[in-house]
Amino acid sequence: MNRSAEPATAADFEQGAAAILSAEVWDFIAGGSGAETTIAANRTALDSVFLVPRMLRDVSTCSTRSTLLGRPVEMPVAAAPVAYQRLVHPDGELATARATAAAGVPFVAATLSSVPIEQITAAGGRVWFQLYWLRDESATLDLVRRAEDAGCEAIMLTVDVPWMGRRLRDIRNGFALPAHVRAANIVTTSAAHERTGQGSAVAAHTSQEFSPALTWSALDRLRQHTRLPLVVKGLLAPEDGAQAVQHGVDAIVVSNHGGRQLDGAVASIDALPEIVDAVHGRCEVLLDSGVRSGTDVLRALALGASGVLLGRPLIWGLAVGGEPGATRVLELLRAELRDAMGLAACENVAAARRLQTFRRLA
Amino acid sequence: MNRSAEPATAADFEQGAAAILSAEVWDFIAGGSGAETTIAANRTALDSVFLVPRMLRDVSTCSTRSTLLGRPVEMPVAAAPVAYQRLVHPDGELATARATAAAGVPFVAATLSSVPIEQITAAGGRVWFQLYWLRDESATLDLVRRAEDAGCEAIMLTVDVPWMGRRLRDIRNGFALPAHVRAANIVTTSAAHERTGQGSAVAAHTSQEFSPALTWSALDRLRQHTRLPLVVKGLLAPEDGAQAVQHGVDAIVVSNHGGRQLDGAVASIDALPEIVDAVHGRCEVLLDSGVRSGTDVLRALALGASGVLLGRPLIWGLAVGGEPGATRVLELLRAELRDAMGLAACENVAAARRLQTFRRLA
Amino acid sequence: MNRSAEPATAADFEQGAAAILSAEVWDFIAGGSGAETTIAANRTALDSVFLVPRMLRDVSTCSTRSTLLGRPVEMPVAAAPVAYQRLVHPDGELATARATAAAGVPFVAATLSSVPIEQITAAGGRVWFQLYWLRDESATLDLVRRAEDAGCEAIMLTVDVPWMGRRLRDIRNGFALPAHVRAANIVTTSAAHERTGQGSAVAAHTSQEFSPALTWSALDRLRQHTRLPLVVKGLLAPEDGAQAVQHGVDAIVVSNHGGRQLDGAVASIDALPEIVDAVHGRCEVLLDSGVRSGTDVLRALALGASGVLLGRPLIWGLAVGGEPGATRVLELLRAELRDAMGLAACENVAAARRLQTFRRLA
Amino acid sequence: MNRSAEPATAADFEQGAAAILSAEVWDFIAGGSGAETTIAANRTALDSVFLVPRMLRDVSTCSTRSTLLGRPVEMPVAAAPVAYQRLVHPDGELATARATAAAGVPFVAATLSSVPIEQITAAGGRVWFQLYWLRDESATLDLVRRAEDAGCEAIMLTVDVPWMGRRLRDIRNGFALPAHVRAANIVTTSAAHERTGQGSAVAAHTSQEFSPALTWSALDRLRQHTRLPLVVKGLLAPEDGAQAVQHGVDAIVVSNHGGRQLDGAVASIDALPEIVDAVHGRCEVLLDSGVRSGTDVLRALALGASGVLLGRPLIWGLAVGGEPGATRVLELLRAELRDAMGLAACENVAAARRLQTFRRLA
Ligand SMILES: Cc1cc2nc3c(=O)[nH]c(=O)nc-3n(C[C@H](O)[C@H](O)[C@H](O)COP(=O)(O)O)c2cc1C
Ligand SMILES: Cc1cc2nc3c(=O)[nH]c(=O)nc-3n(C[C@H](O)[C@H](O)[C@H](O)COP(=O)(O)O)c2cc1C
Ligand SMILES: Cc1cc2nc3c(=O)[nH]c(=O)nc-3n(C[C@H](O)[C@H](O)[C@H](O)COP(=O)(O)O)c2cc1C
Ligand SMILES: Cc1cc2nc3c(=O)[nH]c(=O)nc-3n(C[C@H](O)[C@H](O)[C@H](O)COP(=O)(O)O)c2cc1C
Repeated sequence: MNRSAEPATAADFEQGAAAILSAEVWDFIAGGSGAETTIAANRTALDSVFLVPRMLRDVSTCSTRSTLLGRPVEMPVAAAPVAYQRLVHPDGELATARATAAAGVPFVAATLSSVPIEQITAAGGRVWFQLYWLRDESATLDLVRRAEDAGCEAIMLTVDVPWMGRRLRDIRNGFALPAHVRAANIVTTSAAHERTGQGSAVAAHTSQEFSPALTWSALDRLRQHTRLPLVVKGLLAPEDGAQAVQHGVDAIVVSNHGGRQLDGAVASIDALPEIVDAVHGRCEVLLDSGVRSGTDVLRALALGASGVLLGRPLIWGLAVGGEPGATRVLELLRAELRDAMGLAACENVAAARRLQTFRRLA
Repeated sequence: MNRSAEPATAADFEQGAAAILSAEVWDFIAGGSGAETTIAANRTALDSVFLVPRMLRDVSTCSTRSTLLGRPVEMPVAAAPVAYQRLVHPDGELATARATAAAGVPFVAATLSSVPIEQITAAGGRVWFQLYWLRDESATLDLVRRAEDAGCEAIMLTVDVPWMGRRLRDIRNGFALPAHVRAANIVTTSAAHERTGQGSAVAAHTSQEFSPALTWSALDRLRQHTRLPLVVKGLLAPEDGAQAVQHGVDAIVVSNHGGRQLDGAVASIDALPEIVDAVHGRCEVLLDSGVRSGTDVLRALALGASGVLLGRPLIWGLAVGGEPGATRVLELLRAELRDAMGLAACENVAAARRLQTFRRLA
Repeated sequence: MNRSAEPATAADFEQGAAAILSAEVWDFIAGGSGAETTIAANRTALDSVFLVPRMLRDVSTCSTRSTLLGRPVEMPVAAAPVAYQRLVHPDGELATARATAAAGVPFVAATLSSVPIEQITAAGGRVWFQLYWLRDESATLDLVRRAEDAGCEAIMLTVDVPWMGRRLRDIRNGFALPAHVRAANIVTTSAAHERTGQGSAVAAHTSQEFSPALTWSALDRLRQHTRLPLVVKGLLAPEDGAQAVQHGVDAIVVSNHGGRQLDGAVASIDALPEIVDAVHGRCEVLLDSGVRSGTDVLRALALGASGVLLGRPLIWGLAVGGEPGATRVLELLRAELRDAMGLAACENVAAARRLQTFRRLA
Repeated sequence: MNRSAEPATAADFEQGAAAILSAEVWDFIAGGSGAETTIAANRTALDSVFLVPRMLRDVSTCSTRSTLLGRPVEMPVAAAPVAYQRLVHPDGELATARATAAAGVPFVAATLSSVPIEQITAAGGRVWFQLYWLRDESATLDLVRRAEDAGCEAIMLTVDVPWMGRRLRDIRNGFALPAHVRAANIVTTSAAHERTGQGSAVAAHTSQEFSPALTWSALDRLRQHTRLPLVVKGLLAPEDGAQAVQHGVDAIVVSNHGGRQLDGAVASIDALPEIVDAVHGRCEVLLDSGVRSGTDVLRALALGASGVLLGRPLIWGLAVGGEPGATRVLELLRAELRDAMGLAACENVAAARRLQTFRRLA
């Protein structure tokens, strides 16, 4: 027997990352808010979606290719915006952006990325810019312009962070950013770096910078301000999905922020079908929170998603192996997805979205 | 890392209290009746209520303020009546009453409080008086008058204790009150203090004093006797909710007494929606049993409650740190509730009561 | 603290019995068939029935008294027929019969009792005779006559044992009866006593003696043969309940034989509501399998049962303490039932049968 | 006590096999694809099907006899096609074929059997030939002819393997066949035997040989090519069931390949009822995946199956004891099935298929 230590799943990378990272960085990545009920529900809910595969269709040319925001992607997946990636690896966002470029999927660069947006887009590949609405609106809109100038192909406005959720791990750890990891896109205070002995410095910083007064009208101002496609990230209610359509968005992301904002929020996959109904094909519907495998992607597609965002798994890959690590995570996901699609007789993503599902607890 | 030992949740106070209290006092506080099925169900049921948050509404002035029995409160929470609080801390009810006064929420003083009602009201703050109907009706009505005179703002009649449930921990411990903890409001025998080697002295005392013959007509007599608002605590059946409305109550508390009375009783949160329907806005509907966090409060509001009572968590705070401990528990709850409301885009309690929910096991 | 070792629940007696009995006798009592799926389901199902208690009704004279087969009982409970009770205590059926007589509830004496039926009825109290239909029909009918002569008040025909279920514990133990424990009512071979090294001797004996050809027409012949009330034990299908009514039975017992016959059979409590509907009040409906506490009895009543049979708990009491042990088990059950009824504001069994229930897993 | 070590259930054989086999062979047999969600669901789902037994019907001549593909069988069970049986025992398929012949049930010989089909049929008994559609269609059809010539009574086309699912255990083990175990029916490369250090050699071999382009039209060509009854194995969608009927198949097997193909695929037993409805009696409907006991067979029958295939349990029997081991597994299953049928008052398989069921989680 030659039992291999090669990671064969995202979970293997998770274990690897847990072993490498400092406890508090690990906690920052892995943790959620409150009792982490929603983190757990994200998995329970995905695991309760069983697929009803079809058979006897030619899958010899089965392909995961699709489009996101109207442009071709190698698979219906994008790298979720994740702040401060240099926390886990010196190359930070550069490495993950390169990995996603190589994989032929979009990279969503965070407002709080630890590498400036211009360097990220310079790495090649398709980049979308994730926007947090700052208290300073003109600074916010300047960021958008800058992202546009840097070549970003879409603006993804995250709407579920009027402030940061109560992430108890960070609070207990008194988590603060190390000196070498900074919010590289925004002019800001040192709040995120100061250990006050009073909870999470990162949360303090966020609450200083982000606007808790964001409303649909801001979306209209943003719409006016840029001609890039707009994506709204963080919706869970069907009514909000319908409203987003009214406001002319190109896509929404059904997301509970990986269980990091409202603890007790519904699992994204549980919220998906009703939002898909409400949106009724008038914009793309992406999903994130808890996606770990090709089967998970297929579950989301079968329930009507256009595609998914991948959060923590890419960060595990980055932590374990830099760009090649992130690349491997994406390769595995793609291989798993193609495998799952073929085994369900789906020759393409459109077919995958027609699969039936069956709900069963555990 | 500066991993802090500061309690960050009610559960932290629970652990602290478990470490400090004697086993039998801990058991008296923590325990329930029978196999403690209902205690467990209270949590399982709350944890199965997932919230569907809204987004993109201005929450910069998001406030937990509300009213209970028509008067302003800082949050829709009151301290549940809990007997014999000097068991866990020498200051007993005085400390918790002061903490609730500081927090701007009502304190419900128990018939069986270990500090006289007059001293409790003297501590300032809004106090409601919890009434047990004694076998001696005129003594019962005298108690009401005395509470009124002491400045209590409402009478809360507990109706789920014709006698004490079979609390096996107390029975096995042969639990009896220590000499320095007494029912300070009522003239009574020493039954609660006598270790007979035959089960719980506290249960024996209760069965000696309380009337098992309480009916709706007593409520009418009580209504005649006082002009204070009336609250009925301990209903779980929709029919009883409707009947309470017929009898002119101002509020009901949907409660299974924290799992301490009928083992196998439905979880309060499971009973809530039907009672809310039955009551149809004709009186306020409070809920208790198992509430531990701001998310739990939001769950209750989303399912139609006007507010909640908080039982054991305050006692844990009291045990761990006296008045400041109880204060901290309330601060945490308020912070959690505000956080959860904001993350669900609820600018106020009315909005919170319009949230949709999703049921999922574990 | 004077932590008492007094058993306070049936579960305490269970632990006591497990400690005292030999492994193979314990296994014979505790075990079920196959993977013991149905044993587990009996508990899961009972535990998933939550009660919706009423309040504010006078329960000062709350009583567990009721009738079974039209005659008064102190509570709606009877001792289930359990074979070979001398396995666990030298007094065997005499002790349990005396305990049930003292408790004012019927004792169901098994065909396979290890004390002759005449001695059991001589112990006083109300005795019903449980009948297994033997391959020798005239011997079977003789048994009935003998039971009648001995003063039995009803015949309970067990219909779920064409042969014994595959009780793996007994099979693995090669279980056989010790010499001093014999089927005292029937003339039989020594099969039940012979260790063949080939599975359960008790099962071999059963299959030798019992008729696998029992049909509804036998019931008619039995009906002709005796004027005693007839009870059919072991029904789970609504159609069979309806058919029993057609054949003029006085009561049925919804039972899966405590999980000892068909492994994978539906939990009795899950089967109950549909059978109650099908029977529609035309005969009494008892339930057994998994009942362990007063709350369980109340669950059965709330779902429409007229009463319950108690199997293993009495045997645990007998094993631990002979007649006084069995008596204590019955006292506890009665106290628990009265307690639960009172806490649900049920002044009598009729009220208990009107309680609403709520289903929730765990 | 003479606690016997004799296996009394399939699970006992499983333990035995786990103890005997090398880790990587064990993993090849036991493992499934991905997170083995579907393996787990197969059991959870079967265990959640509870049976509602009937009573009072003569079961003295209760028989498990039935027909499969119109011919008599001793019980409605066949040995599932399992590749490379010499991995676990030198006699391989010869032993299991003899065991099934003795048991009076069909043996399904796999395309990838490690003993040539002619030797298998020579062992006596009824043999069906399981067909994988190879990239080389004429080789495929030659195989069919050869099976026919060898005396096979049916062709079972497996349609859920366009390629092998991602079996992580094999991938991590770098599993390859040992030199003495070969695909004895087909001319092939040595791919299945080469340890490349790159995942599963068996998967590599499969992907080299099997056609991923199989469609319904191939079925028509197969139908033309042979007059043997045709069975399609591996359907889970009702639409595919209906389509199979349109294409004139004699039976389908509702199967997720024992959780070895699409991880996240619906449990077979969950998929069964809808397929049975869709097929509407126009062909036989078999089921496999997770069947371990007579109760499981009865569950499948009650939900409408004509019979089941038994996969791993036979292999455990073979591993532990060669032909006698496999024989014992079949004897146990038959005894369990007869027992369960009798205890549910089913005198024959037709009656078993009329049983009602009740769903309950664990
Ligand atoms: C460490 C970390 C940082 C994150 N930072 C951001 C961010 O800056 N902006 C944002 O919109 N979402 C952020 N997210 C949320 C992700 O975009 C995504 O919604 C979430 O990770 C999806 O769940 P998953 O991690 O389970 O895949 C972050 C998530 C993590 C784990
Ligand atoms: C130690 C203890 C004593 C209590 N005493 C009383 C009481 O005297 N009167 C009353 O109405 N409820 C009493 N309760 C019940 C509480 O008012 C409340 O219903 C319950 O604690 C709510 O559940 P929770 O503890 O899970 O929050 C008591 C509860 C506890 C834990
Ligand atoms: C050791 C034992 C022996 C039993 N013997 C008989 C019997 O002779 N006749 C019968 O009808 N039921 C018999 N039963 C079944 C009981 O009457 C009853 O249905 C079952 O025990 C109820 O489940 P419980 O033990 O969970 O209360 C027996 C049960 C046990 C545990
Ligand atoms: C080791 C192994 C090899 C198998 N080989 C084949 C095969 O060659 N062809 C096929 O159609 N199914 C094959 N199967 C699937 C079985 O036919 C059957 O669908 C599955 O084992 C049923 O699940 P069970 O093992 O839980 O009973 C194989 C299964 C196992 C465990």
